[in-house]
Amino acid sequence: MKKYISKRAIATKRSAIRELLKLSEEPDIISFAGGFPCPETFPHDELAEIAADELRENYENVLQYGLTEGSLTLRRAVVEWLQPLGLRLSVDQILVTTASQQGLELVSKAFLDPGDVIFCEAPTYLAALQAFSSFQAERIGISMDEDGMNLDILEERIAIARQDDKTLKAIYVIPDFQNPTGITMSLEKRRHLLEIARREELLVIEDNPYGQLRFAGETIPTIWSLDTDSRVITLMTFSKVLSAGLRLAVLFTSDSDLMDVLVRMKQASDLCTSKLTQHMAARYIKEYDMDEHLKMVRTCYRKKRDMMIAALEQHMPQNEGITWTHPDGGLFLWVRLPDEIDTGKMFPRAIENKVAYVVGSDFYPNGGGENTMRLSFSLNSEAKIDEGIKRLAKVVREELAAKRVGVGV
Amino acid sequence: MKKYISKRAIATKRSAIRELLKLSEEPDIISFAGGFPCPETFPHDELAEIAADELRENYENVLQYGLTEGSLTLRRAVVEWLQPLGLRLSVDQILVTTASQQGLELVSKAFLDPGDVIFCEAPTYLAALQAFSSFQAERIGISMDEDGMNLDILEERIAIARQDDKTLKAIYVIPDFQNPTGITMSLEKRRHLLEIARREELLVIEDNPYGQLRFAGETIPTIWSLDTDSRVITLMTFSKVLSAGLRLAVLFTSDSDLMDVLVRMKQASDLCTSKLTQHMAARYIKEYDMDEHLKMVRTCYRKKRDMMIAALEQHMPQNEGITWTHPDGGLFLWVRLPDEIDTGKMFPRAIENKVAYVVGSDFYPNGGGENTMRLSFSLNSEAKIDEGIKRLAKVVREELAAKRVGVGV
Repeated sequence: MKKYISKRAIATKRSAIRELLKLSEEPDIISFAGGFPCPETFPHDELAEIAADELRENYENVLQYGLTEGSLTLRRAVVEWLQPLGLRLSVDQILVTTASQQGLELVSKAFLDPGDVIFCEAPTYLAALQAFSSFQAERIGISMDEDGMNLDILEERIAIARQDDKTLKAIYVIPDFQNPTGITMSLEKRRHLLEIARREELLVIEDNPYGQLRFAGETIPTIWSLDTDSRVITLMTFSKVLSAGLRLAVLFTSDSDLMDVLVRMKQASDLCTSKLTQHMAARYIKEYDMDEHLKMVRTCYRKKRDMMIAALEQHMPQNEGITWTHPDGGLFLWVRLPDEIDTGKMFPRAIENKVAYVVGSDFYPNGGGENTMRLSFSLNSEAKIDEGIKRLAKVVREELAAKRVGVGV
Repeated sequence: MKKYISKRAIATKRSAIRELLKLSEEPDIISFAGGFPCPETFPHDELAEIAADELRENYENVLQYGLTEGSLTLRRAVVEWLQPLGLRLSVDQILVTTASQQGLELVSKAFLDPGDVIFCEAPTYLAALQAFSSFQAERIGISMDEDGMNLDILEERIAIARQDDKTLKAIYVIPDFQNPTGITMSLEKRRHLLEIARREELLVIEDNPYGQLRFAGETIPTIWSLDTDSRVITLMTFSKVLSAGLRLAVLFTSDSDLMDVLVRMKQASDLCTSKLTQHMAARYIKEYDMDEHLKMVRTCYRKKRDMMIAALEQHMPQNEGITWTHPDGGLFLWVRLPDEIDTGKMFPRAIENKVAYVVGSDFYPNGGGENTMRLSFSLNSEAKIDEGIKRLAKVVREELAAKRVGVGV
């Protein structure tokens, strides 16, 4: 049957993360692999009440087809919710998507022809890479500094790609508490990135799933709010704010031509997003205190991050050059081991020791990062975080010892 | 900003139907345009109860990310539900999709490279045409007889396409109560279609949204159940069975390689479908009497079809060669007016007279059908169906009279 398969499908690898998740889902394994939000942050009783009410009293509406652009009720609620946070938006700049993965899909479908170039951070969100490659785009990864993408390297790579006569379309970034590194892009770099994009006539795709989850440091304006010429498309999801199971996100563009194309692409992709889940989010925003709710969510993740960093400091081998990031928000931190350790090869031993992570090299579009791994602190209890890091440290220590012996032989 | 737009996006027209829906949604218009299921058929109180219970008692599960393949709970429920109906399935042959439009999208993405040929009925489901063209496939429409696609013409067109050295991939059909015509494909043709597909090495995409909605005549086996070499991919949606707002459907393939590719495509498209809506459908199937429910749905649509046919017989001009189909199920019937009438040009006058339909030519992939229209009988009350057809008949009568005068001058 292989002859039926399209070239783009052949170009799309099965997600390594989702395959690993299966391995790491055995009950006695402490998994830092999946980017699962903590279920204790889901306002489930409130959502239960809203869902039941909508299904009883408003079923003719929420159980019917809806506008491809998204329910006006939700788009209006989003405008009102985000305004005090400095995000100026109008209803017609918002497209509701079936979670942000669909936003990435629609952006790829609307803008990326085979061979077109999209620049992204290296490492970056694995499923974004998958969306881009499923439309046969060329993904050029730009390495990261402590304050985000290295823009000198970006400019070099743009120049080289221009020399090679490639069609350059967009820069994809996750400025706040990036997946997988937890790094936040500085304000200076956000401005500079926009300048480069303007000069080079590139779209900026700003993926912002964790922006509301800052638990330390000061808020930095979104790239959306710095944009002056409708060059930025911003994606915000409800997955980490209300729940992943709603499969609900919003995409912003202030260019009506781009919006028109994205709507057409969504029509062909799934006609419309569920109005039930849209109304659940809209009514939660309007009827409950989102600020209070988000305070609780941030406190939850700050405690877990603190626990994970304390455990890394306590258990990981000292003076071996092992480093990790200190994210100010989000769900992830990033660990860099000594160069001689390959976290991919180490993975089976981690599973033997009942702990799991995501192999860092999976997040690199053009190779690299063999000595890195992503740890998610969002799902496990503080006790499990401590125990899991202890197990991981043991695996790393044994791996280091084996390498030393190997060198000695 | 136009320079950013991909070739495939340029090839995808905005859905005429969805644009017309906006026009026809004014409250005093009786619209036969949209293919909306009747909200009175939605088991909303039962769904309210299930949703509230899942959100209160099972929130850690239903509000979290799920398997890309779909929740086991739903796939098992579907297997058990469909077994007595003669659909032999195993859990791993089922992919849950975010409604059938996503199924069409995934099939297109997985199998259709630019220029690849997909054969389909002419006319056929508009949003399927949109999905195919959004992946730059060539859509070749095959005209319909009273018992489904004309297979002699299909064989001719296959031969011509082979001579032109095209890559032929699939045949797309809606065998039961087709959208837009309401026509059902005979058993003989289903068998013959499969023979042709086998000989020509083509996939068969069987879109079956209305199969459960037969209210007259005898059930004909699905093409899925006649398949002997894993050539058929079948799509079944919950949109007309439980509600469109769940955005929930299932896709079947018994070829594990094809399933693997479709799952990869879905990972890149939306990661997974909402577990909340999946559990709502699964528990409805398990805890309530689906047979009884479907009896009610069928009775509802049979009455509406009867009313529409009675109204057409009563109000439409006689002896003018105006014909309509007599569907045994589904939501639609198809009207053919005399050749000199163009239903697209007539549309503004229909709106003036406060009645709406879908212009038939929109359903033809390669032109034609200018004198046809699709009427949906699913949404309106019987009184409104009668009044709407009366208005439509007036418009047709005036249009005929104007043509005659035009000829006379």
